Amino acid sequence: MTGDDRAPVTVVGLGSMGRALAEAFLAAGHPTTVWNRTAGRAAPLVDRGARRAATVEDAVRASPLVVTCLSTYDATRQALEPAAAALAGRTVVTLNSGGPHDARETAAWASAHGARFLDGAVKNVPQAVGGPDTLLYYSGDRAVFDEHEATLRALGGDTVHLGDEVDLAALYESAVGSTLLPALVGFFHGAALITARGLPARSMVPYSIKWFEMISSILPALADEIDAGDYGEPFSAVGLFDGALADEQRVAEEAGVDADWMEPMYRLVRRAVEEGHADHNISALVEVLRKPERAE
Amino acid sequence: MTGDDRAPVTVVGLGSMGRALAEAFLAAGHPTTVWNRTAGRAAPLVDRGARRAATVEDAVRASPLVVTCLSTYDATRQALEPAAAALAGRTVVTLNSGGPHDARETAAWASAHGARFLDGAVKNVPQAVGGPDTLLYYSGDRAVFDEHEATLRALGGDTVHLGDEVDLAALYESAVGSTLLPALVGFFHGAALITARGLPARSMVPYSIKWFEMISSILPALADEIDAGDYGEPFSAVGLFDGALADEQRVAEEAGVDADWMEPMYRLVRRAVEEGHADHNISALVEVLRKPERAE
Ligand SMILES: NC(=O)c1ccc[n+]([C@@H]2O[C@H](COP(=O)([O-])OP(=O)(O)OC[C@H]3O[C@@H](n4cnc5c(N)ncnc54)[C@H](OP(=O)(O)O)[C@@H]3O)[C@@H](O)[C@H]2O)c1
Ligand SMILES: NC(=O)c1ccc[n+]([C@@H]2O[C@H](COP(=O)([O-])OP(=O)(O)OC[C@H]3O[C@@H](n4cnc5c(N)ncnc54)[C@H](OP(=O)(O)O)[C@@H]3O)[C@@H](O)[C@H]2O)c1
Repeated sequence: MTGDDRAPVTVVGLGSMGRALAEAFLAAGHPTTVWNRTAGRAAPLVDRGARRAATVEDAVRASPLVVTCLSTYDATRQALEPAAAALAGRTVVTLNSGGPHDARETAAWASAHGARFLDGAVKNVPQAVGGPDTLLYYSGDRAVFDEHEATLRALGGDTVHLGDEVDLAALYESAVGSTLLPALVGFFHGAALITARGLPARSMVPYSIKWFEMISSILPALADEIDAGDYGEPFSAVGLFDGALADEQRVAEEAGVDADWMEPMYRLVRRAVEEGHADHNISALVEVLRKPERAE
Repeated sequence: MTGDDRAPVTVVGLGSMGRALAEAFLAAGHPTTVWNRTAGRAAPLVDRGARRAATVEDAVRASPLVVTCLSTYDATRQALEPAAAALAGRTVVTLNSGGPHDARETAAWASAHGARFLDGAVKNVPQAVGGPDTLLYYSGDRAVFDEHEATLRALGGDTVHLGDEVDLAALYESAVGSTLLPALVGFFHGAALITARGLPARSMVPYSIKWFEMISSILPALADEIDAGDYGEPFSAVGLFDGALADEQRVAEEAGVDADWMEPMYRLVRRAVEEGHADHNISALVEVLRKPERAE
């Protein structure tokens, strides 16, 4: 592919994720300009055909589409500030993590500089970027998304527009991402139990993968219960979880593993029982998570 | 199917899971005897061809294989106690949740009564019992497992023997199961964020399912790092998680959602950073979960 027919794109921020984004644009044949605060990180991309911009302003001027992937929204605005004069008429797409409030603030900032803006999130690891099944979602003006969709699709085949409200991607990013650290800590806890027995953590992986498939299989039903506010047909009752903490603590103690991190989750279960949800499905925990002061 | 050629089996405990087990045995044509403390729960199974035993001793005497699924190991021993004299020469299989210690205790109890014993776990919801892909694993004497494998396979096509040590199923049950409540609470938290915005929880389900696929896809690498004790090639660095709590809290506060349950997980992340793991992969959390007093 010569790339002559592909839209030029600029990638700002070449950490683990930014580098993967730039590689995917290059692989799809887009003329790709890159910039990173620590300039040395651009070298492997230059070897693959990227153009390294000397300044962030130069980087922004190089393409109508500027995709950023820095640690935070704050860092993104800070890094782009010297290029503010060059932003007018271009489209900025942020792909970092952060909250809806940050996304709105950054959208306002971009707009104040005359830029069009989309916020997005990569729902996968850097190694998956560019894959036919890799999910990225975006929010903001649909017309802007439509204009750049073909280019953005180079980053993942499952490219979705969530809606015109600019903070929707950050909202879903936060909401969907809420399972990451808990699921990982749960897995590491299990690995600590298994390895304390002298068995390899690898031996539990096929079972853990099946377990996540099981959890995935019940999500539609749990979500429907939450949307209906009706938890009355329990297939995994709140009461079944209540009391399991003592078991978990004993198993952990036998293996010398720290189980303190689970306690507040079991407190949620306890509160749900106290609020009359013992015989309701575990999805009733959502009622406890919604703070009392907001409950009507 | 007449069931005449199938081994008879007894199911003790007809809660959500026990009922599903009995149904699967019936569907596979096994003459199935059932008993439950609250006798009325047997009725729908009797309609499907099960034989209801008047006493637990009668139930045990009806079959060489007795599968139990009560809430706990304690409840199981308590329920079987009146049938103790009938246990000799039979095989008891427990399928409840609980810890390795409990499994060993129950195995010793069964052995003292002359019974052979397997412990197992159903790694799925009751609705999935009997499915070709449904995972159940067992531990205990391999010869006993081999003898009953064909019958047990009626409960799920993915039927595995983990090893001769009787507490292995409970160990893996605890280890693999450690992700359940955390993953669900994470999902409910996300659902609370989405619904606070007036959007249906159902709208995040496809993304959450993809997200769990992503998490599953990185488990082999994480497990290998844990087994090697080498966290030096970070694709999701500990440092990237550190500091995200403030973001999560802000998003939660905006939506009126209680985020307290995440704090101790972020304390684990903080401790990992303090112990020099900031640039290591997130799998390094396992080192923090292994209590200091056990560290060599
Ligand atoms: N890695 C993943 O698995 C993954 C997955 C999904 C989403 N994400 C999200 O993607 C974003 C980036 O993640 P990453 O893994 O690429 O992080 P990373 O490897 O730590 O890279 C961070 C990038 O941000 C730059 N940066 C930070 N502060 C800056 C500032 N004030 N001015 C200029 N540049 C600054 C860094 O520049 P220097 O090189 O000069 O330090 C670097 O390019 C994060 O929001 C993360 O949550 C990551
Ligand atoms: N449901 C699931 O999704 C699921 C999934 C995997 C594993 N499991 C495990 O399977 C086991 C059973 O779960 P379940 O959902 O079937 O629970 P359940 O619906 O609450 O049923 C509990 C059963 O235990 C009996 N029982 C409790 N204490 C007893 C005692 N002292 N004497 C006699 N019988 C007693 C109950 O009898 P009564 O009817 O007389 O109360 C009932 O049959 C648990 O260990 C659970 O963790 C469940």
